[in-house]
Amino acid sequence: MLQTLFQRLEDQFEDMIRVRRYLHMHPEVSFKEEKTAKYIANFYTNLDMKVRTNVGGNGIVSTLIGGKPGKTIALRADFDALPIQDEKDVAYKSTVPGVMHACGHDGHTSMLLHLAKALHSMRDKLYGTYVFIHQHAEEYAPGGAKPMIEDGCLNDVDMIFGTHFWVTEPLGTIGYRTGPIMAAADRFKIEIQGKGGHGAQPHHTKDAVVTASQLVCNLQQIVSRRVNPLDSAVLSIGNFEARNEFNIIADTATLSGTVRTFKEDVRNLVELEMARIIKGTCLSAGITYNFQYDRGYPPVVNHELETTFLTTIASDIPDVSSVNEIEPQMAGEDFAYYLQHVPGTFFFTGAAIGDPNNMFPHHHPKFDFDERAMFIAAQTLGAAALKAQTR
Amino acid sequence: MLQTLFQRLEDQFEDMIRVRRYLHMHPEVSFKEEKTAKYIANFYTNLDMKVRTNVGGNGIVSTLIGGKPGKTIALRADFDALPIQDEKDVAYKSTVPGVMHACGHDGHTSMLLHLAKALHSMRDKLYGTYVFIHQHAEEYAPGGAKPMIEDGCLNDVDMIFGTHFWVTEPLGTIGYRTGPIMAAADRFKIEIQGKGGHGAQPHHTKDAVVTASQLVCNLQQIVSRRVNPLDSAVLSIGNFEARNEFNIIADTATLSGTVRTFKEDVRNLVELEMARIIKGTCLSAGITYNFQYDRGYPPVVNHELETTFLTTIASDIPDVSSVNEIEPQMAGEDFAYYLQHVPGTFFFTGAAIGDPNNMFPHHHPKFDFDERAMFIAAQTLGAAALKAQTR
Amino acid sequence: MLQTLFQRLEDQFEDMIRVRRYLHMHPEVSFKEEKTAKYIANFYTNLDMKVRTNVGGNGIVSTLIGGKPGKTIALRADFDALPIQDEKDVAYKSTVPGVMHACGHDGHTSMLLHLAKALHSMRDKLYGTYVFIHQHAEEYAPGGAKPMIEDGCLNDVDMIFGTHFWVTEPLGTIGYRTGPIMAAADRFKIEIQGKGGHGAQPHHTKDAVVTASQLVCNLQQIVSRRVNPLDSAVLSIGNFEARNEFNIIADTATLSGTVRTFKEDVRNLVELEMARIIKGTCLSAGITYNFQYDRGYPPVVNHELETTFLTTIASDIPDVSSVNEIEPQMAGEDFAYYLQHVPGTFFFTGAAIGDPNNMFPHHHPKFDFDERAMFIAAQTLGAAALKAQTR
Amino acid sequence: MLQTLFQRLEDQFEDMIRVRRYLHMHPEVSFKEEKTAKYIANFYTNLDMKVRTNVGGNGIVSTLIGGKPGKTIALRADFDALPIQDEKDVAYKSTVPGVMHACGHDGHTSMLLHLAKALHSMRDKLYGTYVFIHQHAEEYAPGGAKPMIEDGCLNDVDMIFGTHFWVTEPLGTIGYRTGPIMAAADRFKIEIQGKGGHGAQPHHTKDAVVTASQLVCNLQQIVSRRVNPLDSAVLSIGNFEARNEFNIIADTATLSGTVRTFKEDVRNLVELEMARIIKGTCLSAGITYNFQYDRGYPPVVNHELETTFLTTIASDIPDVSSVNEIEPQMAGEDFAYYLQHVPGTFFFTGAAIGDPNNMFPHHHPKFDFDERAMFIAAQTLGAAALKAQTR
Repeated sequence: MLQTLFQRLEDQFEDMIRVRRYLHMHPEVSFKEEKTAKYIANFYTNLDMKVRTNVGGNGIVSTLIGGKPGKTIALRADFDALPIQDEKDVAYKSTVPGVMHACGHDGHTSMLLHLAKALHSMRDKLYGTYVFIHQHAEEYAPGGAKPMIEDGCLNDVDMIFGTHFWVTEPLGTIGYRTGPIMAAADRFKIEIQGKGGHGAQPHHTKDAVVTASQLVCNLQQIVSRRVNPLDSAVLSIGNFEARNEFNIIADTATLSGTVRTFKEDVRNLVELEMARIIKGTCLSAGITYNFQYDRGYPPVVNHELETTFLTTIASDIPDVSSVNEIEPQMAGEDFAYYLQHVPGTFFFTGAAIGDPNNMFPHHHPKFDFDERAMFIAAQTLGAAALKAQTR
Repeated sequence: MLQTLFQRLEDQFEDMIRVRRYLHMHPEVSFKEEKTAKYIANFYTNLDMKVRTNVGGNGIVSTLIGGKPGKTIALRADFDALPIQDEKDVAYKSTVPGVMHACGHDGHTSMLLHLAKALHSMRDKLYGTYVFIHQHAEEYAPGGAKPMIEDGCLNDVDMIFGTHFWVTEPLGTIGYRTGPIMAAADRFKIEIQGKGGHGAQPHHTKDAVVTASQLVCNLQQIVSRRVNPLDSAVLSIGNFEARNEFNIIADTATLSGTVRTFKEDVRNLVELEMARIIKGTCLSAGITYNFQYDRGYPPVVNHELETTFLTTIASDIPDVSSVNEIEPQMAGEDFAYYLQHVPGTFFFTGAAIGDPNNMFPHHHPKFDFDERAMFIAAQTLGAAALKAQTR
Repeated sequence: MLQTLFQRLEDQFEDMIRVRRYLHMHPEVSFKEEKTAKYIANFYTNLDMKVRTNVGGNGIVSTLIGGKPGKTIALRADFDALPIQDEKDVAYKSTVPGVMHACGHDGHTSMLLHLAKALHSMRDKLYGTYVFIHQHAEEYAPGGAKPMIEDGCLNDVDMIFGTHFWVTEPLGTIGYRTGPIMAAADRFKIEIQGKGGHGAQPHHTKDAVVTASQLVCNLQQIVSRRVNPLDSAVLSIGNFEARNEFNIIADTATLSGTVRTFKEDVRNLVELEMARIIKGTCLSAGITYNFQYDRGYPPVVNHELETTFLTTIASDIPDVSSVNEIEPQMAGEDFAYYLQHVPGTFFFTGAAIGDPNNMFPHHHPKFDFDERAMFIAAQTLGAAALKAQTR
Repeated sequence: MLQTLFQRLEDQFEDMIRVRRYLHMHPEVSFKEEKTAKYIANFYTNLDMKVRTNVGGNGIVSTLIGGKPGKTIALRADFDALPIQDEKDVAYKSTVPGVMHACGHDGHTSMLLHLAKALHSMRDKLYGTYVFIHQHAEEYAPGGAKPMIEDGCLNDVDMIFGTHFWVTEPLGTIGYRTGPIMAAADRFKIEIQGKGGHGAQPHHTKDAVVTASQLVCNLQQIVSRRVNPLDSAVLSIGNFEARNEFNIIADTATLSGTVRTFKEDVRNLVELEMARIIKGTCLSAGITYNFQYDRGYPPVVNHELETTFLTTIASDIPDVSSVNEIEPQMAGEDFAYYLQHVPGTFFFTGAAIGDPNNMFPHHHPKFDFDERAMFIAAQTLGAAALKAQTR
């Protein structure tokens, strides 16, 4: 049966490219992906497949019921683009000024559409049910995954798989990791409210610059002393602003930054300890403050059994040349929410363009990927979906 | 003889006010005081007094040789205005948009012109020589005093006196202090040059925010540990700037601030220790930096004998109700340079406006002073000049 | 063949206990284990097995050549005790005051001796060669492993296995981990040499307390900013000493502490950054220092293939109830050196005493372990050695 | 009348030396000066002068009522010695092991006794009343001044004078200062109570060393930012103690140090800000603490009129070669308490030994002073007392 699937995917490869390039030329930013959603829905409608639109926003869900009883397996692809100006010099360059598919979601979408089409063509022989989740708004918290789940996209789902094309890994590789694979990426802002005054009379002020500086130093202790050294955590302050004349002591200093963690308890600990240190440091100075901590997506935590299963599946695909355990990534992904509800795994499909002069990272204005990754991803996800029935 | 002088000054008080208000309506900022200089020169020319123009820039010096031999006494008044919009609602309001005599130099000038006129009228009976120094550009370092001295304004001068109207002290008071009375006011800028990067990967960066914060903390030790506790020093950082996205670690952080001291050796120590601490702190982080320390005026250090002499003189003037030792002031004044060359003293003439609703500090857009202070200052400087002959 | 081995080990279990208890009663501290070495050597001599004594010190190596050709597999047990007073109330309590087997090396030794005896009894049927490494001085750096290797104990060895009884894990468990399993445990000492003086005159001193305090704060940045957040590192200062009268500023402050890492490059980075921060901080204060960094054992880094192999073997042993991946341990072990030369793995054999009131951690005066762990360890090591021939 | 007084003092100079040397050979430490007190009392009794013993402890007060009405003037000398072993090689070396007059109080006492004797001999012609206060326990807080005042030694006193021999100033000089002349010298102790643990597991501890280090850094801000830069303050930490094994994180760290100030409000501010910073810093770390602040003597604050009066008097004494304004001293003196109740001044009498090889500072085991200082001090205090009647 896998042979059939792989063959049909191969037969559709030209279409996959065509659809991906069409989407690439018509990108829409997160939460504004209305035309893309309609395009996806039409694809399914044209196949006479059942489709649900406006799932938790612009989300689309199509469900395929096989001819024989079995498990319900969900496969997810995201379809939003980014507010970046396309600087590539290719025929399929974005036609929308300032908007671009700079993270490969166009490819994810086309790949999943054609995998659905291939499975649909084999539906009578299939065991179980297949849910194709086309998610909007992955790039911009609070994201589309959460409202789609709340709107029922995971109802009756037994297992979920998803992938991301990864242009720093060679074509033919699959990257996996059990447990945390992508970080919780949070942001914070601290406003230190002192009392300004003349630089020559510090005793009449409450010096916000000194207090904020001391705070930056004190916050280092969270990672160095308060987080378990076997866990990972990053607390970075990107912005320190206290603007005044050189001889005027600042009233206010503002710090903003990011926190990255891989476990909810570490994340909670970091926020708690930040609150504690800010409170104590400001108290030391008789200064007031405002501390705002905004949680991004939770960490993506892959389930052990499903991850092991996926690696076995991937190893057997001829086009996959190697399956590698990878380091956790510090970026965030709202695939995290699906894995809080059902077992599954999220993996990376190597998509590096061979020519090193043409390689640009994700979110770069010249970002592109090797389109053959779509074929490999479709095979892997498809194989996983089918084999999961008999696992 | 003092009686005569005081009487003549009293007779001219209306003129003093008139001239001061004319100057008030026609202010010119530092180093641009050409019309004011011409006005002053004309005043002397009209009296048939000798006048030297363009002394060290826009400076004016007039010399009066008395009928009898004696010492050479210099009296100084500054005449530049400030880039501030006059917000007072008075008839003599500034006519120049954005420029204003917000520090009383108009009054200093009119007072000295009329004192010169009075002394000139008594010239036959006078012992010694009187040098009237009208200095441009006091408000803006490097100031006018230095080039005027280099251009000879202190040649043959035995002693110098100067005063500043002080609107936080009541009319009728004279404020004096032996030794340091006004601070050295320096400014500095420190650019910390790290290596930026993504907030999630601190180990690939050299974090300029953390290093600059640590530097702010470390710099506190200069005042707390390295300066003699019996000496005064202030080091304040008014500005801390490292602007980035919240999740990008800063490349560069810039600190700027001010240093105030009352002794040259303390000033040198602070600059030296700053250099040492900046160097060490940046070395700790493998980071480079640029440290710029710009010296403003040196401290104004009053000579002991001349200050004691002045207080005795002032105590005997009927219009002076009290002569008070005052605390050193953290502001700067380029009268400092004159006192590095000849003995003398700089004092404050109380000039507070009685109405507390109308009192505004120096450099305020509504600044004004009680014009009777001109009469008191003229009496005090005149008496000092005459009495100095027989000291 | 495994059945035979397991049966013979079971038959010898009483002897295993007896020998272990004899060793427990006659402990010797690291580098002084002469009688224990002689006891071990005699055991082999009595079996007519070849034995090499004084290998790299007090080390003993016995080699068993099987009847058929094959790989050379080394198995290692350590045999030194600790300078701790035995406080247990048991018949086999230590007879040597202040010395005790408080880490289970008596059990490791007896287990390996009886495993050797069992294999010796089967020698005709065995493939390959078996090297029994009895290592002295594991507890005290620089340890016995290094000199034993230099003295040839790993010559011709293809693979090595070792285990440690672990009393915080239940009997029947085997704990494994690919890659780093035990930390590099280093120590350091920093002497800050300032210039003392009276507390009322800080400007005449170079304050060692303030500088050392600032250093402690600055050192936090190594873990928080300079080490890859995906790597583990700990830098702890256990001791801060600057003793003076309350009103005398300290001449000298001494910090000492420990660094724990799992990778050589992280370890190198931490030492390098410490040197950089100490240098810069002391330079900031015009203070000299002495920095001593003493490396303990390197991290124990298990080889992937051998670890996976071991887990498969262990899973098949009936007495092993579960095989668990464990977290890396922050303690050090000189088994690290063997793994730098030949492939292999180091694992933990659960040895918890059932009674929770009687459980005490390693190095505790009341430490003891469940002696059945010896049987399980012997089975696991023996099975690994035999199966390795056909891997 | 002054001539008579000076002559009688000169006549008694040999006696002054003799008595001083007797006291020098029989020193008694603070609060144990019973024999010295008896010696002083006997001196007065032998003169038939009224004497009160056990005033506020071992204090002695003798009162001389002149033949004519006038003011009541108090003169004070202290008489306690120090727990220091005398290392001088002179005939009048201390006979008490480990106890020594190393601060000149023997000289103060003999000087005042003979001044009293001289005035007593002139009593019929004297205006006013003279109170000779022989104070015990100056060296050791809480000191003797406070209980003596509480026991009435200042009753009806109009003015008080006191002096200290100063061996770093030449013989013949009188050092004076209006306002603060000697510091408030306080001590403090801060115990940081964290939670210890293994150095490899910082997250299970509350690290007292890091918190105390951060506290040391934060406390620098009191002097650098919170005290008026025109005021003097010192905060020095002499002792930092956290003793553990290098790999054990400390439970407890103890800081002790001294605070010096010259004004009560600055002193209060420093204590208040210390409390604030300690509280905030410990809160940051979730750590408890104990903060103990022990006040020593308040600052000695000389009254302006009495100080000016004293300098005029001193300038007229032929043996006084110069009267100098001196810098405030960072040491403490309980003469401070007298000046809180009655006007007066405390001055320094130059007492340097000419031979530079023989000069040792106060509290040094080889301390000595030029005994002629007794004569000069007696003249100055006597003249002040007599002239005060007609001021």
